[in-house]
Amino acid sequence: MPRYALKIEYHGGPFAGWQRQTGQPSVQAAVEAALAKLEPGLSSIAAAGRTDAGVHATGQVAHADLSRDWDPFRLSEALNHHLRPAPVAILAAARVSDDFHARFTAIERRYLFRMIVRRAPVTHDAGLVWQVRGPLDTQAMRAGAAHLVGCHDFTTFRAALCQAKSPVKTLDEITIETRDIPHGREVRFHLRARSFLHNQVRSIVGTLERVGAGGWHPDQVRDALEARDRARCGPVSPPQGLYLTGVGYPEDPFA
Amino acid sequence: MPRYALKIEYHGGPFAGWQRQTGQPSVQAAVEAALAKLEPGLSSIAAAGRTDAGVHATGQVAHADLSRDWDPFRLSEALNHHLRPAPVAILAAARVSDDFHARFTAIERRYLFRMIVRRAPVTHDAGLVWQVRGPLDTQAMRAGAAHLVGCHDFTTFRAALCQAKSPVKTLDEITIETRDIPHGREVRFHLRARSFLHNQVRSIVGTLERVGAGGWHPDQVRDALEARDRARCGPVSPPQGLYLTGVGYPEDPFA
Repeated sequence: MPRYALKIEYHGGPFAGWQRQTGQPSVQAAVEAALAKLEPGLSSIAAAGRTDAGVHATGQVAHADLSRDWDPFRLSEALNHHLRPAPVAILAAARVSDDFHARFTAIERRYLFRMIVRRAPVTHDAGLVWQVRGPLDTQAMRAGAAHLVGCHDFTTFRAALCQAKSPVKTLDEITIETRDIPHGREVRFHLRARSFLHNQVRSIVGTLERVGAGGWHPDQVRDALEARDRARCGPVSPPQGLYLTGVGYPEDPFA
Repeated sequence: MPRYALKIEYHGGPFAGWQRQTGQPSVQAAVEAALAKLEPGLSSIAAAGRTDAGVHATGQVAHADLSRDWDPFRLSEALNHHLRPAPVAILAAARVSDDFHARFTAIERRYLFRMIVRRAPVTHDAGLVWQVRGPLDTQAMRAGAAHLVGCHDFTTFRAALCQAKSPVKTLDEITIETRDIPHGREVRFHLRARSFLHNQVRSIVGTLERVGAGGWHPDQVRDALEARDRARCGPVSPPQGLYLTGVGYPEDPFA
């Protein structure tokens, strides 16, 4: 059976997350339902990142085994037709070898977290950003973030339910950029690692927000990390600012 | 009665436009209802641009006469409280002189039109952009747009119902910028004039899209303009890509 990789964009708002769950809408179920319109009896698909409820993606990758040989462009067009009106789009499809696995072959995940700092409520970006009302010291946030880059035991920044075997991960990048918006600022966090623990990005962003607001000294981020204690984490940020923006593979299937 | 200018952002999706209409939701009615919570018996408010159904704003300006002396910051906070959960936000409030009129004192209006060129449907930006599937030649669009800058009779680019006394307007700017997005491109049109005719921006953008798609030669834009004939206009673009981004006054009330 030929295997296809799919690059997927979605609005996480209406979904209980990527993963199929009985009685709840999921992105996986939406994509599988569209695939089933093309080929009944399809086996389930696997994705690089099992995003939580409300989390978005602009570059999720999944793979599916189909029985027919599909032209990749026609496959993406047909899936987008059947996905309507769900806010899920197949950006690209590609034929891959049988040993490609969207999750296990991946060597890098990239996430973006969007934060809006403004008094007035957001209108156009509602559900797409985390709005914070107070001013934030981005230099302090950058100083706090610097303690997290590299290989560490991230027990403090990991959900209690996380199923990863080891809490040790290498965080390759946290970049914090800011841009002016009318009567406020947008802060964008870019994080990159081979893989992340459950809730790791939201735990980090929520903690850095405390640093930016002045509640934490930047060095307290290092202290919290070194404590390896979930109770030492700052508040976990809400999901709607988080985007899975890309997945890296030894060879880009969509190149 | 002290007069206040309000800078207003809104998502046009749920509204039949800025202007109050019996039996239909409008941005004006939403803002007036919030003001009435603060001061019962308020007279109606006036805005710089009477945006159509589905058109957004990030910098609409309106003025209102209130009976009490309000601290401008407290006024905007109180209005935002009462506007919830409507997607309307007061970005700023300012005390202005009695001869300030949001519409008649204005000397410039600025609009943005967002177009997404991509095969796959938009997810996060649904309702906030006009999606076009084919490729567009932006150089041809710029050449077509250049014919429209300056003082012209814009009868061709004016809604049949337009109530302006004269079709002669001076268009000070049409800038077209593009940026790459994953598997597509965003095209942003920036237009600036003292004032616009009804549907002028959407008529221009819809015509330029025809030029970008190759259906029209750029010089046909000049021919259509010179014909002064509404029937010669290209298709009017849909409203959801259009944003009133700013209004200019001899003195910025919010400076």
